[in-house]
Formats: sequence, structure tokens, C-alpha cells
Amino acid sequence: MNPSVQSQAIKALTTVRGLHWNDSGQAALTGELARYADRLDRAFARWAASLGAEPLLPPPCLPPGVPERCGYLSSFPHHATMAVPVADDDGEDPVRSLLTPAACYHVYPTLEDSHLNRPLFLTLRATCFRNEDVFLPLERQWSFSMREVVCVGADEDVSRFLETARETASTWCEILGIPIRLDRATDPFFDPASSPGWLMQRLLPLKTELLSDGLAIGSFNSHQSFFGETFSIRVCGQPAWTGCAAFGLERWLLALIRRHGPDACGWPDPETLT
Amino acid sequence: MNPSVQSQAIKALTTVRGLHWNDSGQAALTGELARYADRLDRAFARWAASLGAEPLLPPPCLPPGVPERCGYLSSFPHHATMAVPVADDDGEDPVRSLLTPAACYHVYPTLEDSHLNRPLFLTLRATCFRNEDVFLPLERQWSFSMREVVCVGADEDVSRFLETARETASTWCEILGIPIRLDRATDPFFDPASSPGWLMQRLLPLKTELLSDGLAIGSFNSHQSFFGETFSIRVCGQPAWTGCAAFGLERWLLALIRRHGPDACGWPDPETLT
Repeated sequence: MNPSVQSQAIKALTTVRGLHWNDSGQAALTGELARYADRLDRAFARWAASLGAEPLLPPPCLPPGVPERCGYLSSFPHHATMAVPVADDDGEDPVRSLLTPAACYHVYPTLEDSHLNRPLFLTLRATCFRNEDVFLPLERQWSFSMREVVCVGADEDVSRFLETARETASTWCEILGIPIRLDRATDPFFDPASSPGWLMQRLLPLKTELLSDGLAIGSFNSHQSFFGETFSIRVCGQPAWTGCAAFGLERWLLALIRRHGPDACGWPDPETLT
Repeated sequence: MNPSVQSQAIKALTTVRGLHWNDSGQAALTGELARYADRLDRAFARWAASLGAEPLLPPPCLPPGVPERCGYLSSFPHHATMAVPVADDDGEDPVRSLLTPAACYHVYPTLEDSHLNRPLFLTLRATCFRNEDVFLPLERQWSFSMREVVCVGADEDVSRFLETARETASTWCEILGIPIRLDRATDPFFDPASSPGWLMQRLLPLKTELLSDGLAIGSFNSHQSFFGETFSIRVCGQPAWTGCAAFGLERWLLALIRRHGPDACGWPDPETLT
């Protein structure tokens, strides 16, 4: 991106009351904007609870070994951010842990080696890190908030869940006055060079994005049996299929700003969504 | 700590349903334990709102320059953890940012250069990192959740707020059946070797800890005019005083486990607190 385009985009958002941008690519929210973000997230959590979803409070980093088992570091080293203690004096290698790249990676390790006899739903909000060349407030941040709802079950449970999630999110956008379209996308979980998953995504609808003015504010992903096999999670004797609905909270705020202006006081009430 | 003592302490907590410990020193919470943690945090947030506190949603790292201006890295390098992108191929030094060491550091930069004519209250929940030699579930984690309420005002506003916070927290512990005592402590904001603050804390009551069975589950801190001067925040023409009440959510859960057993279903309802 042209540096002047970037600085114009940042300048345009300085009129948003309660948005405190810093040049490492992160933002603090205060006042009505912070209140709205929490209330919107609470609406997602209520919708998840209505599906029977259990809450998960994740740690900031993935558990040791999980990034390797999921192939994250080999597929997306350029996006990865590590938590690294300031080096000790004793010369030992410090522990390095991957800061969460996407919320749902926390779900599968907690279910490792389990045998389910019915579909399971979990929901969590995680602070995610994604390194990029250029950062823009609310749109493309080094760190951002992702609310996810995850279904673990048979293939038809996952398909039905993803269909429900797409319909619910579309209805919500209509209520909030956010213009959207649904679009198939390439799957971020697989690396074209090393994984047959990339070919699979062209044969099966693995990922749908919820786009508002070209901005992905949500996505609906089927991981098929990838996580079920990786973490030995079985449903009725078969490797579990998993799917997730993911919502980027800052991007929903940006879509609302574009539609209704910078003052969150005048935006549609998230309480009306569920 | 003796390694066998550590492993016994970890083993004792494996009976806690919903606690998922990993050996980097972080925990995920699920089910009733996760639900209780959120409801307890919500009670703190309601108490803060009753004081007129505005919400703040912090980013995971402190804004660039803030750690240096607060002297954090020179005072506590051994506790610090940085967020570091996996090195790019172009050989440039990657950005390194300090992962939040204590929640309230996020408050003062958002108020930089402001002139207040009345006391201001803010509240936030932050994931904090503190590196240690030994980690124990819920008790001493590499990362943990801190809820803070911060008062920015004249010295008497801060003193009155800290007194109210100590009383409220003590009453809550009584309702929750958690045995506690209040104890003066040394101030964590100043380094004895480099700062006159350390001498000051022996003359003035700068920090009080809320202890349950020797475990600090909360603290009440006056920073006097340190942050007011560092960030040019003035109240009625004078450098602002600041003070914070900080609550470690995982430690409250541990105190409840010690008192009422590992099943959060049987613990006193946080809704009754406010």
C-alpha cells in the first residue's frame, strides 16, 4: 500500500471517538465504542449459548506443540508472532510460544483423545495476532479480537451448523444495516505447497467469507476431519469433523462506522439481535 | 521451589473440572469454571460502573515507548515478555512490543496531555504476562487475567477511592466465604536501586495487598503523581494522582477452590455481590 494512502486511512479514523491507535498496529477502545464492542460480542455469545455452546476462556498463546501439529508455522511463518521472555542471564534458551493466530486452535487440544456421542459446540473470544506489512485501524491490525463458535461432530452436523451460522450472520447484518455478500474463499488452514487441502478447497466449499464493502467481517470454515484426526477426537466411532464461524469484532465496528458514522451512540442496538 | 512440590501442586489441581493447564505456564478454562470466571469479572465491572467508571478494551501490548517512559524494562527485565514477529527474510529488525505486565499501564497513554476538572474512573480487564522461574496453575501463571479499576484525580480522590475499594473487596470476600487479611506491601512500580519511590513506600502506604492464605488476590495501589507527571495529565491545574484496585481473576478462583472445593457449581453466586 502507498504510504500516503495508509496515512490518509489512519487520519480518517482519528475522528472516531474512543479509538486509540498506536503505530505498532494495535488499538485501545474506550467509552461508547468499547461498550458497543462488548455488547456486540455478548450478542454473539448469546447466540452461541442458544446452540448449546460451552464457553472457553483461552490463554494468549497456543499450548506447546500445537502449532507444529497443525502445521501453522510451516504454512504461515510470515504471519506468526511469538511471546518471548526477555533473555535470562543464565544463557538458557527462553521458552517461545506462538501467540494465538486464530481462536479455534484452542478448542481441539482441550478435546484431545475424547470420544463424543453427539455434536459439541464451543465458543470463545480470543485476541489474535497476525503480522502484516501494513496495518490499518480496525481493518488490518497486528492484534484483533475474534469471536468464534465451533462445532465438533459428524460431517452433517458441521454442514448444518455452518448453514445456520451463515443465515444468522446475514440476518444480523440486515438488522444492523451493514451491506454484505457471501463469497467462497481459499482456505487459510492449508498451505498450497505442502498440503492436499488446498486442492480440496477447490472441490468442496470449505470456506465462505462474509464480505462488507470488500472487507471480510466473518468466515465460515469446514476443516473436515483435519483437527479430529490430528487430536484423536472421535464422534460415534469416526474421526470428528469440525467447523467454525469466526467474527472479527473490530471489522464489524469498521463496517458500522462506514454505514452509520463514527458515533457508536447512534448505531443499532446489539440487544435486538438475539 | 522443589520440583516435587511443584508437581504435587499441579497434580492436586488436575481434579478441577474445566482447568486445562499447559507446561508453558498458561491455562484454558472451560465449562462452569469459565462461566464463573466471566460472571465474577462482570461483578467487578458492575461495581466499577457504579463508581462511574468508563470501560477500556486494551490491546495485548503496551503502546511503543510506554514501557520505557514508565521505567518498566529497567526495573523488571526478568518479568518481561515481548511479542516478536517471526523474523522476516529481509533482515530488518522486527518490531518488539512489551506484552502487558499490568492492566493499568494502558490507561495513562489514552489520557496523555489531558486537563481534567473532576476525578475520572476507568476499568479494564487485561491479559497480563509475568515471567517467573516456576509456574503453578491459577496461582502463578506466565499469563493471567487482571481486572482493574483506576482513579485519576486529586490526591484525596485517590485516597477515598482506594479506601472504598479495600472495603468493597473485603465485603465481597466475606460474602464469598474467602478468608482474607489486608497487608501493606512493597511497591512493584519502583525499583529500589534506581528510584526514590522505594524509600517513599516505607513512609506512605502506597500499596496494600488483599491476602487469602498468603496468596495476594488483589492489591490497592497509589502511584501518587508518577503517571500524572509522566503523561502530563492534570487535574484542576495540578499533576494528577492515580491509584488502582487490581484483582487477579485466576487467584480468586483458586481461593474459592481452596474454600469450597473444585466444583464451581457449588460456589456462592457472583450476582449477589452487586
